[in-house]
Order: sequence, then C-alpha cells, then structure tokens
Amino acid sequence: MKTPEELHQIIAKKVAGFCEKNGDGTLFQPINYIMQLGGKRMRPILSLMAANLFTDELEEAIYPALAIEVFHNFTLMHDDIMDNSPIRRGQPTVHQKWDNNAAILSGDTMLVQSYQLLIKTNPEKLTDIIRLFNTTAIEVCEGQQMDMEFEKRSTVSVEEYLEMIRLKTSVLVGGAMQIGAIIGKADEASQKTLYTFGESLGIAFQLHDDYLDIFGQKENTGKQNGGDIIADKKTFLLIRAFEKAGNEEKAILEKYIGNKNHSDTEKVEAIKNIYEKLGLKEELISLAKSYFEKAMSALNQLHVAEDRKEPLKKIAAALQTRQS
Amino acid sequence: MKTPEELHQIIAKKVAGFCEKNGDGTLFQPINYIMQLGGKRMRPILSLMAANLFTDELEEAIYPALAIEVFHNFTLMHDDIMDNSPIRRGQPTVHQKWDNNAAILSGDTMLVQSYQLLIKTNPEKLTDIIRLFNTTAIEVCEGQQMDMEFEKRSTVSVEEYLEMIRLKTSVLVGGAMQIGAIIGKADEASQKTLYTFGESLGIAFQLHDDYLDIFGQKENTGKQNGGDIIADKKTFLLIRAFEKAGNEEKAILEKYIGNKNHSDTEKVEAIKNIYEKLGLKEELISLAKSYFEKAMSALNQLHVAEDRKEPLKKIAAALQTRQS
Repeated sequence: MKTPEELHQIIAKKVAGFCEKNGDGTLFQPINYIMQLGGKRMRPILSLMAANLFTDELEEAIYPALAIEVFHNFTLMHDDIMDNSPIRRGQPTVHQKWDNNAAILSGDTMLVQSYQLLIKTNPEKLTDIIRLFNTTAIEVCEGQQMDMEFEKRSTVSVEEYLEMIRLKTSVLVGGAMQIGAIIGKADEASQKTLYTFGESLGIAFQLHDDYLDIFGQKENTGKQNGGDIIADKKTFLLIRAFEKAGNEEKAILEKYIGNKNHSDTEKVEAIKNIYEKLGLKEELISLAKSYFEKAMSALNQLHVAEDRKEPLKKIAAALQTRQS
Repeated sequence: MKTPEELHQIIAKKVAGFCEKNGDGTLFQPINYIMQLGGKRMRPILSLMAANLFTDELEEAIYPALAIEVFHNFTLMHDDIMDNSPIRRGQPTVHQKWDNNAAILSGDTMLVQSYQLLIKTNPEKLTDIIRLFNTTAIEVCEGQQMDMEFEKRSTVSVEEYLEMIRLKTSVLVGGAMQIGAIIGKADEASQKTLYTFGESLGIAFQLHDDYLDIFGQKENTGKQNGGDIIADKKTFLLIRAFEKAGNEEKAILEKYIGNKNHSDTEKVEAIKNIYEKLGLKEELISLAKSYFEKAMSALNQLHVAEDRKEPLKKIAAALQTRQS
C-alpha cells in the first residue's frame, strides 16, 4: 500500500507530465500556471487511496485521479472570475494575471481535458465513471450557483449553507472516492459507503476551513485572518451569529456587516469577539467533528481488512487537525 | 431515409425534451433560453445524416447529435461573453439578459451536459466517440483563442484566417459527421472521408457567412449589413483588401478601420466599395466554392450507394446558396 506522501509524489509527477504535454501555447499557459500553484492534491490522493483499499495495482486509477484534479482546478479558475478574487494560493489568479477571457477559455479547455484524462482508464468501467463524474460536475456548478445567490440574499439558513458546501466542495471528494472504488472493482455498496465517507469528510474539511479563516494563525495559513468576515461571506459562523445574537450583538453585526467604512482589522476583531461570546467557535468545532465522525463511521462499516484503512484514517485525521 | 426536415423535427423534439428535463432552476434558465433561440440545427442534422448513410436505425445517433448541439450552444454562450456581443439570433445574449457569471456557469453546465448526452449512446463505441469529441472541443477552444488574438494583432494572413475558422467552426461539423459515421458502423476510411466532408463544408459555410455579412440582403439575414466591417473584424475580405489595395484604397481603409468617428453606414459603404473594386466579392465566392467542391469530392469518393448521398448533397447545396 502507498503512503499519502508516495501518492502525492505520483500525482505531482503526473501533473508535471500533463503540463509538459500541454506546451506553452497561449491557451495552455494559464492551465499550466494554475496546475502548478500547488495545493494539497487532496482529491486525487483520496481517489488513489480508495482504489488502494481494494487493489495494489494503481495504474488504472491514476488518470481518473488526475482528471479530478484538473476538474477541481478548472472550477477554481472560473470561480475566481465569478467571485472576483485577486489571489489564489498567494499568487495572482488567472483572470488577474491574464484577463477574464483567458480564464474563461482556458478553464473550458481544462474541463474538456478532464474528460481526455478520464477516457484513459479501463473502457469497461468508462460509462459508470463518466456518468458519476458528470453528475458530480453538475452538482459542483449548482453549489457555485447557490453560493453566488447567497451573496444577493439577506438571509441564508444553516441547512442551506450546509447544502451549498456539500455541492460546491464535498460531492467532488465523494466522487473522487467512488471513482477510485470503481476502478478497484469494489461492489456497489462499498462504492456508496466510500462516496459517503468522502462527502462527509469534504463537509468537515470545509467547516474546518471556515474555522481556520478566523481562528487560524496567519503564520500557518498564509492568509489574512478573517477574509470571510471582510467579504461579508454568509458562512456557518455569520449565519449562526445572526440567529443567536441578542440586541447588543445584533447592533454590532449590523454596524459592520455589509459596511466598508471600517478598517478590516477593527471589523474582524469585532465580529470575532461576537463569535466567541456566542459560543460559535465551539459550535463550529462540534459540527465539523460530527461530519468527521460520520466519515469515520462509514469507513468502519466498509468490508475491507482494517489495516488497509489505516492510510485513509491517517489522512482524514490530518485534514481535520490541520493548521493551514 | 430521413429528409432534412424530418431530422430537424427529431432534433427539435429532443431539444424540447432536454429543456423540459432541465426544469426552471436558476442554473438551467439560461441553458433553456439559448437552446430555444432556434438556429439551423445544422450540426446535429448533419450528424444524423452521416449515420443515415449507413443505417436506417437512427436511435443511437440522436443523443450524440443532441450533445453536439448542446456543445455548440455552450460555445456560443461563452463566445458571446468574450466577444462582448449583445445580440444572438435577434435576442439578447445570455450575459446581457442575466450577467457574465450566469453565462459562465450555465455554459460550464452545458459542457458537462454534452457529455451526459454522449454517454447515452452505445457503450461499445463510447471511447472512440468521446475521444473524437474531446479533440474537437479543444480545437474549437483553440480557434476561439486565435480569433481573440487576431483582434489584438495588426496583421493576419489569409492562411491564418482560414486555420482559425477551420478550428472555430469547421472541425465541429467534421466531428459531427464522423460521430454519425461511427454510430453507423462505417469503416475508418469512410469516417475520415466524412470528417473531411464536414470540415470543408464548414469552411465553405463560414466563408459564405462572411459574404452574407456584407453582400447579403438585410431583409433576408435579419442582421445589420456589414457587422464585420463595423467591428473591424479581420475576415478574409478585410485581410485581402489590405493585401491588394493600392495607395488610394489603402488610405480609405486606414481612414475607416479601427476608427469610430464615422457613421456605420458611411463606413460600411466605403469599405464595401473597396471590396467590390478590388474584385474581392468574386474572390470570396470562388474560395467558398473551392471548399464546397472539396466537400463534394469527398462525398463522391465515399463507398455508399449514390442515392443514399442525396440528402447530404441537397443540404450542402442549400447551405451554400442560402440567403440567410
């Protein structure tokens, strides 16, 4: 069995090969740029690990895993245009470095390339894999659509927020796991169990991201603290703050949210205080933990020798205690 | 064998079913809107005709044909953002009616949907079909990339222009034909011949479009005459005009092209005069004809009973003599 580090290396090598094959034509420069900004490569690693639960032969699983990583980076490229984000992983976003048109068109190309990579797998399983990939991809678009819609709305419920992050972030983790499982010739029940594992882990991951955004250490995350607060993002914390706030807290929330007349530091400090006062730090940790446990419980149910589950348990725990 | 009109009806019905299944969620409204703006449905009809050369059983060919139409409309939705076009088929473009973000995201969704439709075909041929579709899709992106690049350049050669329209417009017509042929179980040589037919017909089609833009009758085309001239588009006509112009004509070209200080009518009239004076109307007709004949010659070479080729000959001739 491969360790997460070995799998990371396999993916890194394939990403490098993919970029080299792209060459340096105008259409491909932004693609190579975003693919080489780095990142955790969480989705392809998890996909390979899912296959590795059932087989030691990972060759067939590598291209679909790379397809998922290319697809993920396509969504980042287009989301950054839509969200008007200037920075990604500490570097200028594609639409910032080139322009919107380049980001639209190179993103489109990446979406097609993800299918080019997918069809390099075993033709026998191709229909199943592409069907799952398609469903997942459309759900990711639906998640982004909800996210944009939330920006225009005055209120969003916790339930709606969780459904949005499930679609935008988590189904792709679930899909990555299930595709790995399909290639590992897992039965359908095991495939579904691993989808649930990935989906729950993905939600826990996103909630932990929300946590780090405000309670993380800048030295670790490399990001400005409270980016979500500055952008007035309707995350779990802000939604719950409005729900739980008494009159005094509500006045503070209304003073700062949607208002650009305060310094970022002052705004972040004030809202962070409210989150802490209302016990939302603990509430968020506890919610993330419940999804993490749902993922673990799915993994425990899986009919696979316990020692084969170890790498997945290890990476899941690392994701959930990460500081960055 | 089906007539073009019967095939148009089959496609129209499938498009309606596709839109109905989409429902009216925010993400799908722009998709249903652009799919129902109409158009000639040239690509799916040609794809079905290609299959119909070899088989009377068209069921398997319908979803891939619809996939090609959805893909084509995806490219229109994204191209309209990139080209900043306000009008498509006499109606507001998607980014105009909604906004850029909606057009980006719904376009992305359509690209995925085209693969959802593709996998509804015979699984045996799926890898071949998707491989061809992928290659074609990336070429279409490359064509759009060249088109945008040409806008920024001072000169473009006729050769480059023809390569751009081959990629942007014609390979998808070629791909549509070949996919139909694959489904019709044509041998590889026949597939390639039909690809060439579609590709050449596509170039002839685009050149005829360039012709209609300036020499067509507004009553027929429903478009403003000389749209390409007003937008300073480097089409065959403008490229050749600069190549063939003497000092006098060059002065007029330089007076009007890239200059917004003249009325559209005056500009179009002046440039149209130059095109006529330099014999470019005839040159364009003759070039389009040469591609049309290349398409016909491919069709003649095809080892299929002559009477089965009739619908294709008929539709090709209609496309090439169309007034709109």
